[in-house]
Amino acid sequence: MNDRRVSVVEVGPRDGLQNEPQPVSTADKLALCQNLIEAGVSRLEAAAFVSPKWVPQMADGLDVLAGVTAWLNTQGQAQRMSPKVALSALVPNQKGMELAVQAGVDEVVVFTAASEAFTQKNINCSIAESIDRFKPVIAQALQAGMHVRGSISCALGCPYEGAVPAAKAAEVAQRLADVGVMEFDVADTIGVGTPGQTRAVFHAVGHAVGLSRVAGHFHDTYGQALANTLAALELGVRTFHSSIGGLGGCPYAKGATGNVATEDLVYMLEGMGYETGLNMAGLIHAGQTIAQALGRPYASRAGRALLAYRTR
Amino acid sequence: MNDRRVSVVEVGPRDGLQNEPQPVSTADKLALCQNLIEAGVSRLEAAAFVSPKWVPQMADGLDVLAGVTAWLNTQGQAQRMSPKVALSALVPNQKGMELAVQAGVDEVVVFTAASEAFTQKNINCSIAESIDRFKPVIAQALQAGMHVRGSISCALGCPYEGAVPAAKAAEVAQRLADVGVMEFDVADTIGVGTPGQTRAVFHAVGHAVGLSRVAGHFHDTYGQALANTLAALELGVRTFHSSIGGLGGCPYAKGATGNVATEDLVYMLEGMGYETGLNMAGLIHAGQTIAQALGRPYASRAGRALLAYRTR
Repeated sequence: MNDRRVSVVEVGPRDGLQNEPQPVSTADKLALCQNLIEAGVSRLEAAAFVSPKWVPQMADGLDVLAGVTAWLNTQGQAQRMSPKVALSALVPNQKGMELAVQAGVDEVVVFTAASEAFTQKNINCSIAESIDRFKPVIAQALQAGMHVRGSISCALGCPYEGAVPAAKAAEVAQRLADVGVMEFDVADTIGVGTPGQTRAVFHAVGHAVGLSRVAGHFHDTYGQALANTLAALELGVRTFHSSIGGLGGCPYAKGATGNVATEDLVYMLEGMGYETGLNMAGLIHAGQTIAQALGRPYASRAGRALLAYRTR
Repeated sequence: MNDRRVSVVEVGPRDGLQNEPQPVSTADKLALCQNLIEAGVSRLEAAAFVSPKWVPQMADGLDVLAGVTAWLNTQGQAQRMSPKVALSALVPNQKGMELAVQAGVDEVVVFTAASEAFTQKNINCSIAESIDRFKPVIAQALQAGMHVRGSISCALGCPYEGAVPAAKAAEVAQRLADVGVMEFDVADTIGVGTPGQTRAVFHAVGHAVGLSRVAGHFHDTYGQALANTLAALELGVRTFHSSIGGLGGCPYAKGATGNVATEDLVYMLEGMGYETGLNMAGLIHAGQTIAQALGRPYASRAGRALLAYRTR
């Protein structure tokens, strides 16, 4: 493993768009995925096979993935541009898993939380129950030869419980590992974490399941995402999630909850001498295009600054 | 020295406002300073005694400082709220120094850069010449019993030269120390720095003049300010500059160049167990008030998130 290589998982099409109030067309989602892959994205979270009743924005997941797959097949080019692109989807249950199999994704993501209160309010069961429910889902995924990720929400804080002990995220990661999860997405879902706490949580989770299998998923709600990324990076974490253009948050909305912007993350990582395999100009193009489609200002600070510098 | 204590120098009234296109009233500047002091700010950069021809926004510096001083004198309260408030002003030359003496500031800031090209374009002389010019200014400040800071612009990058070697900032700091400067403000004026480079520059400057005399001044142009702050903090730097509400940058302006938001900085520091002596509710009030006066959305992410949480 090359210690200077960082794997960036682009979650914009899923985490970034899922809470968009206005419906985003399948064509715009497809264009976003294509632009991201052309920018070098090799791990792309493109859909969530959850109930359209709860998340209408993700209802066209099959179409998006079919479109991306068809496009990839016609693009030897895209394949040359980046290593084989791994497409992933969020799956809450067996119904979702069947859609994921139908879509032929490479990775599935099951999700629970490090907070009992959040799990109860979010998926109406205890953390232990949520993991039990995943067993058949994971078995099916493994049978289909898929890579299985487990997302641990609220690992750095919970809107209901407040502070969450580092040991809790580690315990949940261990339980997920026991049922076959291969990669652990430690998520600061509400963006409240700070670097000292980030270090404690990732150290504990790494001790439980091995840092090489841990990914950092930071939201920039309180502006802490890159500082927390740095803390995790220096601990040895080499996989991070981000959303192009900081999708998912509106700078002026109350309590903006966007993921860290891919452009800002890549600017920091490349500036520190890490290799991401991503092309900044391509990322900015992808970010500007989707921002325009959403009727939003383009919100990546690194992206805005580079554009201003370019057009000076 | 308490290693868990971090000194935050509020530069919003100066660095944050100096480039505002619309004139900001003296009353609004005075209210900003009062709100900041009531929030616990104990080091406040409130004016720049530069030519009004070049920086019209700073033309009322004497009135602002007279107002703040008069208010402090009538407020035994403010004195109890925070330790003696140290007021500072930027002074480019003897004329500015005379105004600073007249205003009775506690600290003056002379400024040069780590980039010859920037110094030439910004103050029409070489770095060496700029420091020679400070000699009489500094002598007068020391005679007046003032604390003398030296700002080193473009220490992490220059819009004309690009990368700037770490040794350059250290060399400039040493020269400033030789002429009597007591504190060294290492500034990422255009916000291009990343954490590895920040570590190299602050290590070099600290080696030259002692880290306890070094302050980090980061702009969030590329979203790197808090990550760079963390890198400097872990090196041992305990003084940082920030602007309330991230003043100085417009989130949607091309190449927004605001200082890091005081609220975001304090959220990180307090979250890591450092003491700043600052009150978050008071900071948010100060930030919202000036944003309203400027007709700008309130731009601190931590501030916005805490407000949303509070009003949920």
